Amino acid sequence: MSLVLYHAPKSSASRRLRLFLEEKGLSYEGHVINLAVQEQHSPAYLRINPMGVVPTLVHDGRALHESSTICEYLDAIRPEPPLRPADPYDLAQMRNWVRYVDGLISNLIRFNWRHGMAAGAARMTEAEFEEMLKSVPSEERKEAWRRAARNPYTEAELDDSRRALLAMLDQMEGMIENDALIGGRYGLADIATAPFVRRIEEEIAPDAFETRPNCASWWQALTRRPAYARADFGPFLA
Amino acid sequence: MSLVLYHAPKSSASRRLRLFLEEKGLSYEGHVINLAVQEQHSPAYLRINPMGVVPTLVHDGRALHESSTICEYLDAIRPEPPLRPADPYDLAQMRNWVRYVDGLISNLIRFNWRHGMAAGAARMTEAEFEEMLKSVPSEERKEAWRRAARNPYTEAELDDSRRALLAMLDQMEGMIENDALIGGRYGLADIATAPFVRRIEEEIAPDAFETRPNCASWWQALTRRPAYARADFGPFLA
Repeated sequence: MSLVLYHAPKSSASRRLRLFLEEKGLSYEGHVINLAVQEQHSPAYLRINPMGVVPTLVHDGRALHESSTICEYLDAIRPEPPLRPADPYDLAQMRNWVRYVDGLISNLIRFNWRHGMAAGAARMTEAEFEEMLKSVPSEERKEAWRRAARNPYTEAELDDSRRALLAMLDQMEGMIENDALIGGRYGLADIATAPFVRRIEEEIAPDAFETRPNCASWWQALTRRPAYARADFGPFLA
Repeated sequence: MSLVLYHAPKSSASRRLRLFLEEKGLSYEGHVINLAVQEQHSPAYLRINPMGVVPTLVHDGRALHESSTICEYLDAIRPEPPLRPADPYDLAQMRNWVRYVDGLISNLIRFNWRHGMAAGAARMTEAEFEEMLKSVPSEERKEAWRRAARNPYTEAELDDSRRALLAMLDQMEGMIENDALIGGRYGLADIATAPFVRRIEEEIAPDAFETRPNCASWWQALTRRPAYARADFGPFLA
């Protein structure tokens, strides 16, 4: 099977998919999309991903979008090792957990975009910035760019987002069993959450684990997996 | 098997799940949650759905949340008739379509909440309204209530939402094949979309079908299905 992955090293959705591919033992041809020069909005990339976001996985010539959807797809076409619960009820809980985590992405973005995007936009003139925005496919994402680049998030907004992400950890603390989030078995729920926890550990709330022993143990177990090293999350902060 | 459905007649997620249950030929014990008196925020209901939203399906004593997740669960435990594509690529397309439709719910809410909620809130004093808000489980939903009840959406905002919903129909127009959205076969993608199209037809853009013949044919075929009548969407506008 031919798998071509278009991704960015620091993108949380890309990190999720790389970790999933490594856990499956699937090899792929990787292409890094350079977000710093807006390569995700280039005509060539928009042809395979009209939303202009990473990652995209191309399997035997057909493009797939949305990291959670792609992971479920890979689990269906390559069932071993299984990374989704076999029990339908646990599977439903897993899907709702991933949905909840995905819904927290705006909180992560407030921290992430300060580094790459806001810094890049600061070097542009207003005219250059508006010219760049023309290539952003959706109104919603144009607004997000304007906000992050020209009107940086306040400390109060960052605090709100930190609280939302810590509330995720609090939920995890009550769910973790055998160092896994769903049904006591490592899988997509854990993989989907890992990029978020990586950013919490690195910058957003490094001391969060001190009062959350189950999360601490879960994170230690996850980061010791060989696949985690191969997925190469790398540092977010240069 | 014992299925107990907690739902509201006009809620789009409830309509989706009722239609899915009828297509599966699954019978259930139905309980209507009276949104007009905030029954979804009552302690009894919050015990089975901590988010305070409808629907909830209880299967053999275990509560399930999120209509799209519940539909996939039902398709797994009752495989006939299949309402998800067998092909993994089509299944991925279906999941991304449902995800996209779910992401449009804020646009539907702008039209829906004008009727029930805004009218109900208008009859409350400020103190009664704030007291009611205490039972709303999330900050996000409290804000949505304040907005809809005390600061009604403007015509410009309603126009934006109408445009977003018509853009969904435009996409559908290019997807429909054999009166189905994915892979030429009726299933969850169609069922998930039906409550949205029902509101477009009824109030938001009744003439939308005139210029979208594939959507018109799709909608006619869907609404002629016996399960659609049994799911009893009913009128949204009293």
